[in-house]
Amino acid sequence: MARKSMATKTRAPSTARQKAPRRRATAKSMASQQREISVSEFFTKNRHLLGFDSPTKALLTTIKEAVDNSLDACEEAGILPDLEVAIEPAGGDRFRVVVTDNGPGILKGQIPKIFGKLLYGSKFHRLRQSRGQQGIGISAAGMYGQLTTGKPIVIESRTSKRRPAHRYELVIDTRKNEPVVKKDTTVDWSAAHGTRVEIELEGVYRGGRHGVETYLRQTVLANPHVEIAFRPPGTTEADEPVLFQRASKVLPVEAHEIQPHPYGVEIGLLLRMLKETRATTLKSFFQTEFSRVGPTLARRIAEGSGLTSRTSPRRVSPERAELLLAVIRKSRIPAPPMDCLSPIGEERLLESLEEQVAAEYYDAVTRSPAVYRGNPFQVEVGLAYGGELGADDLATVCRFANRVPLLYQQGACALTKAVLQTNWRSYGTQQSRGALPSGPLLLMVHIASVWVPFTSESKESVAGYDEIIKELKLALQHVGRKLGAHLKRAAKARDSERKRQYIEKYIPHIGIALREILDLSERQEERVVRTLTGTLERSRKM
Amino acid sequence: MARKSMATKTRAPSTARQKAPRRRATAKSMASQQREISVSEFFTKNRHLLGFDSPTKALLTTIKEAVDNSLDACEEAGILPDLEVAIEPAGGDRFRVVVTDNGPGILKGQIPKIFGKLLYGSKFHRLRQSRGQQGIGISAAGMYGQLTTGKPIVIESRTSKRRPAHRYELVIDTRKNEPVVKKDTTVDWSAAHGTRVEIELEGVYRGGRHGVETYLRQTVLANPHVEIAFRPPGTTEADEPVLFQRASKVLPVEAHEIQPHPYGVEIGLLLRMLKETRATTLKSFFQTEFSRVGPTLARRIAEGSGLTSRTSPRRVSPERAELLLAVIRKSRIPAPPMDCLSPIGEERLLESLEEQVAAEYYDAVTRSPAVYRGNPFQVEVGLAYGGELGADDLATVCRFANRVPLLYQQGACALTKAVLQTNWRSYGTQQSRGALPSGPLLLMVHIASVWVPFTSESKESVAGYDEIIKELKLALQHVGRKLGAHLKRAAKARDSERKRQYIEKYIPHIGIALREILDLSERQEERVVRTLTGTLERSRKM
Repeated sequence: MARKSMATKTRAPSTARQKAPRRRATAKSMASQQREISVSEFFTKNRHLLGFDSPTKALLTTIKEAVDNSLDACEEAGILPDLEVAIEPAGGDRFRVVVTDNGPGILKGQIPKIFGKLLYGSKFHRLRQSRGQQGIGISAAGMYGQLTTGKPIVIESRTSKRRPAHRYELVIDTRKNEPVVKKDTTVDWSAAHGTRVEIELEGVYRGGRHGVETYLRQTVLANPHVEIAFRPPGTTEADEPVLFQRASKVLPVEAHEIQPHPYGVEIGLLLRMLKETRATTLKSFFQTEFSRVGPTLARRIAEGSGLTSRTSPRRVSPERAELLLAVIRKSRIPAPPMDCLSPIGEERLLESLEEQVAAEYYDAVTRSPAVYRGNPFQVEVGLAYGGELGADDLATVCRFANRVPLLYQQGACALTKAVLQTNWRSYGTQQSRGALPSGPLLLMVHIASVWVPFTSESKESVAGYDEIIKELKLALQHVGRKLGAHLKRAAKARDSERKRQYIEKYIPHIGIALREILDLSERQEERVVRTLTGTLERSRKM
Repeated sequence: MARKSMATKTRAPSTARQKAPRRRATAKSMASQQREISVSEFFTKNRHLLGFDSPTKALLTTIKEAVDNSLDACEEAGILPDLEVAIEPAGGDRFRVVVTDNGPGILKGQIPKIFGKLLYGSKFHRLRQSRGQQGIGISAAGMYGQLTTGKPIVIESRTSKRRPAHRYELVIDTRKNEPVVKKDTTVDWSAAHGTRVEIELEGVYRGGRHGVETYLRQTVLANPHVEIAFRPPGTTEADEPVLFQRASKVLPVEAHEIQPHPYGVEIGLLLRMLKETRATTLKSFFQTEFSRVGPTLARRIAEGSGLTSRTSPRRVSPERAELLLAVIRKSRIPAPPMDCLSPIGEERLLESLEEQVAAEYYDAVTRSPAVYRGNPFQVEVGLAYGGELGADDLATVCRFANRVPLLYQQGACALTKAVLQTNWRSYGTQQSRGALPSGPLLLMVHIASVWVPFTSESKESVAGYDEIIKELKLALQHVGRKLGAHLKRAAKARDSERKRQYIEKYIPHIGIALREILDLSERQEERVVRTLTGTLERSRKM
């Protein structure tokens, strides 16, 4: 029918064709233009999607990607992270960024692809909280450096005392998205293990809330177990680095990899899993490839779709697969296991707020985990109030995703939206509609998830899934209510203190007056004053 | 030095290591996890980056991608586009989207990759205005369909009367990002040429400002030469389709491909071009690979860097390349050619506003082209005021990029920001700070460029490069000022009309009075009234 109606329509153009000034392209000439686009070509042209749209941001993003990788590696290996971040001027608007860690190091064979190929990594395919998740970051930073300075990315890494440290100089062949090794040597390296990444790029070094130092401070805030020595541009070897010290020697709980949860699976994925699985029966397929599916449930799913436990997954037709999915959605299946998450935790949040922020009231809450589109996630909020925090400014909101500070696109971010949508007035703080609360208030808002849905590859803000916003608001309301109570108590205390002072101030005069009137001895006067004070104090307290 | 300071640091962790509850991962175990990530796997997991984050949006995005391709193809071939867009319910929350065009068709051999592989296309590598630019859209839509319904994407295409129409059923192997042909047949097709794309997907059909119908209406608004027959869900073959008629039979001016402009080139790209060029001398390299470089300039650049016109590009060292770039940046080079752009044009903008919007005042302006990061771009603004436009609402802003309506992420978009940053109060319209102007006002804001910098792959909003915002504001101020003048004139006219009415109303009574006082004849009275009216009219006009 579509065809038919087109038949009549297509008369028009043929006439229009004659009208056209001259013959333009044909199917043939267009075909000759078709080409594959490598992912590195794509992101070179779309660098702003990766956070390289301005020189200031480019410098920050580069450091961020290197630090993320170092911290992930250290924690995976159970090592307390000691990082050094150095920014060395390299002439004109160029800087050399050097990030050195004490992590487990990287096997020689892996170095080229990890740093010289986009979309390559260990974190994309597993369900487990980590800072990196895309396999783009560090190689993109290297690519940006190469693009703006022509210089290769330099990696040194050592995995053990018994092995030498390897040194690579790499560039990316952007046409192929493949690493090209320019130099491959060994160097001596005094530490037993660790990795050093050096990238030269065009950038601008700035302070302020989007600056590198803010990023590092917030990193330590959300990662109290991390220590970072920072050498800003212009510091010499002689100078002591700026030291961001750890507030705790306890490593975060290790996050464990989980299988996908049945509720999160769509037909397309299910069909692919059925095709790719090593399992030979439906029963073992569901038990091994999914979380929370035991033998009984596996059998029920298979039989509920008119198949048997022993049916071979490869034999399942698309129509049957749909039935399987229907049964799954009807079955009651417990939430996915949550040990794939590693939140900061209320205790650490408090520790690190107290360490880093000079306030007079602190609070923190870690919600129990929830699920969006089958992905476990968990939100936490830390709060600091009063003290040296600016009383007249808007509240400071520090956003974190999987312990990584988010400095850009605050407006577009679900974490910010949740703060805006919370009614802070009812907790005794100022707030004009649609705005952040104002007053001496600092909020840490953290989402931890096996898959944080970022609004772009630059991972600057979190997409606003309803489940996520809801959890965030509950956490914010929790700390908000307690803040409200605290402010009430404080007000009351101030008030009664004032009353007490009145009494102290005036009773003595009454004493003196009485003494003159009744001409009492000093001791009598004192007694009168004492009793009066006591009585009044008691009455005041009622 | 970085090394040294690490040496001391690395003591801590080793102790920390013993503290760690149990040995975690090692460099070796981590290496075993490293894997390549295919671009289709990446976007399957990050579908929201492509505009598939909600079922409503998914349906719109799918149609948008298909329509974009059809229009690009028709225009490239010099064919007046006749499209049919049908949305057929396919059970439950599923729809079958069918887009049929009268374009030049697609060669058999190209069909699988164009529709079954992400990052494949003809538009990414050339500098020339077109709707598509990434080589992702339509294959991503197919992939989303496959993911949510398990159904293949179906393509029928015919390139000429002399050839049969081919029919393909494709799925994407997301692990490899390669097409898998499920069926390959020929069908009879009554039109001489054209393409039909059918995608079944999970979606929600909605009206409203984010709806398909709005999108189609705005498409015709920005493309007056296009005609679209729309079959919304639930319409049968018997029903007439909703017809969006063309306002003009004139095809847009053809956009021509240009070479990159020297100012837009960075060292990394220059090095690659020097390596890949077919040119054997620097002189011919600069003349053939760049726009706006003639023989003299080419020679000056070469010699300015201590090389000669005859130096072989492959022989240029990175250091020399830097010099070349320095010389280029110092040289005065004319702006890139602008025939790579094809704006709508003031005349067409007016035509189509008058055709589609019932207002009482219309205006349009097309700015002359400008350049950002070496990319030519051009902005246009159409304005309609009064008539049936809602007087109490905020202004309606229709955003377009390369003639494609943008329906989502209005807040994040440079086009919106430019409207917000324009001071509409000074043009006689209401506007509260930070908000859109209010009143019976509709604005069409269009950016045409060889490379529109979108804030995400879903191409929903434009990144705020300064040059772009500046041009937009100039265009908006231009139409704004003229609107202001118009509104003043109108007010004045109303005012004098009122005065005239007073005169008409009262003079006759004066006549009657005089007649009685001086007891004049009817004729005398008439004369008096006439002269009085005349005199007052004249005086009023002074």
